[in-house]
Amino acid sequence: MPPTELEFFMQRVRKSVQQQADSFFNAQHLAAVNLDQAVRYSVFNGGKRIRPALCYASCLAFGGHWQHADMPALAIELIHCYSLVHDDLPCMDDDDLRRGQPTCHRQFNEAIALLAGDTLQAMAFHALALAPLEVSLRVATMDVLATAARDMAAGQTLDLDAEGTPITLEQLESIHRLKTGALIRASLEMGALAAGVTDPKSLASLQRYGSLLGLAFQVQDDVLDVIGNAHTLGKSVGADERMGKATYPSIMGLAQAQQLSHDLHAQALTELHTMEADTQMLLQLTDYLISRDR
Amino acid sequence: MPPTELEFFMQRVRKSVQQQADSFFNAQHLAAVNLDQAVRYSVFNGGKRIRPALCYASCLAFGGHWQHADMPALAIELIHCYSLVHDDLPCMDDDDLRRGQPTCHRQFNEAIALLAGDTLQAMAFHALALAPLEVSLRVATMDVLATAARDMAAGQTLDLDAEGTPITLEQLESIHRLKTGALIRASLEMGALAAGVTDPKSLASLQRYGSLLGLAFQVQDDVLDVIGNAHTLGKSVGADERMGKATYPSIMGLAQAQQLSHDLHAQALTELHTMEADTQMLLQLTDYLISRDR
Repeated sequence: MPPTELEFFMQRVRKSVQQQADSFFNAQHLAAVNLDQAVRYSVFNGGKRIRPALCYASCLAFGGHWQHADMPALAIELIHCYSLVHDDLPCMDDDDLRRGQPTCHRQFNEAIALLAGDTLQAMAFHALALAPLEVSLRVATMDVLATAARDMAAGQTLDLDAEGTPITLEQLESIHRLKTGALIRASLEMGALAAGVTDPKSLASLQRYGSLLGLAFQVQDDVLDVIGNAHTLGKSVGADERMGKATYPSIMGLAQAQQLSHDLHAQALTELHTMEADTQMLLQLTDYLISRDR
Repeated sequence: MPPTELEFFMQRVRKSVQQQADSFFNAQHLAAVNLDQAVRYSVFNGGKRIRPALCYASCLAFGGHWQHADMPALAIELIHCYSLVHDDLPCMDDDDLRRGQPTCHRQFNEAIALLAGDTLQAMAFHALALAPLEVSLRVATMDVLATAARDMAAGQTLDLDAEGTPITLEQLESIHRLKTGALIRASLEMGALAAGVTDPKSLASLQRYGSLLGLAFQVQDDVLDVIGNAHTLGKSVGADERMGKATYPSIMGLAQAQQLSHDLHAQALTELHTMEADTQMLLQLTDYLISRDR
């Protein structure tokens, strides 16, 4: 069976991120060899590049060229990778494996993993400073990315605070909105900015769509943890419940959570349909992300 | 005795950083209360604000207004503070005290300290994105700061790598040039950029001066560790030797190290005298930083 349009797009995204990251790291000439290795190890790890995909698709939807989104997409992925490296550290989730490979601090050591995460964050902003975009657009993307990086850390903190204590649906939503939603919204917004979009109406619509998509993605993730297939999900089913983690099914029940995921998906598509943009790839990505692994 | 011109200047710098940081943190509305507390704890800790002072002095030297340097100076200090918080973590220097107070991870916990450092770095770039400077100057300061943040992490890595192994003078210099020199050079360069300076000659001269100042500062720090007064230095004399740390006196001998500090000081002043700028405050700062606590 030939690859679908979406598969072609995702292949192109993954190839672009790989190439952009590689030439960017080469040009950065990191003075410490092991730090350079740890930085590359953390980025070239078979990641799905979902956030870059949203950035490229958003840029194309608003009439931008593929290359316009190269640096913004790279910057977003570097922030995402840094957050994974730091999240895996012993003082956080203390994970030994990511995508079946040793986590950065297991492969190197804790100090190098800490510094690799720090370096990736600095490099993300550097990529935007050097992006071949009009300076005002570079500054606008930096504002969006810095806001998202800050909110992500705040969401991570709220998530840690909530461990082992009962939380409300509002609190759970607020955690996800910051912890994962912020970077998803930023990916879409930065793609549009890279295409030169600056009108508040389009950016607000993208933010609403991004919020719905991020939330739907998370609810679906929680649902899959209960009903999913351990093989396709890449983690063991029921892990959330065993860890006593608050999830949508644990708070509102499985049937209601499935209904919520369905409703958010529909609302996200409706928001896309109202946009004055060529959103067909964003539509396909939405279906792919929310319906994945069913 | 009335305060000297330098003391007045340093008081103004400290007050500015305090005020700018406070209003910036208020405007950021960090969603996690304990993260907000940890961020403020790490910045409002009685720091000397040496890097902001260099940034303001450089901006004024090239005819800029004080306010032009507000956000660049704040951004530099946020990067400096994040690096201290992460350096103090158990996987790095494992320090319990900083300036006589519990380090961030001792006051809060390791996870919060990690996230506070991460947040401070994101906020540094955010401060520059929001700076009331022409967009091209904002981008230029971001490029300089991101480069320095990257080099600082690389220097930290080289420093860790060198622990317990004999290193050459060239290696020691390379570590310091990255670990502490990069941010000192960036402070000067960002101050000049904030004043609107973009000619490569002035920026190159500032970089040379910054390199000499950073190195002189470090050599002097090492010398003071051998001959200094524990009270004025704020740490115990001989600490470097007890920890087996490579220093200028340990590699080249005390007398030679004192001579090197003196020579670098003189060279830094010469470089300042050749600049087409009103460098009198930078001259005073140079004397203060290199001759401090003798």
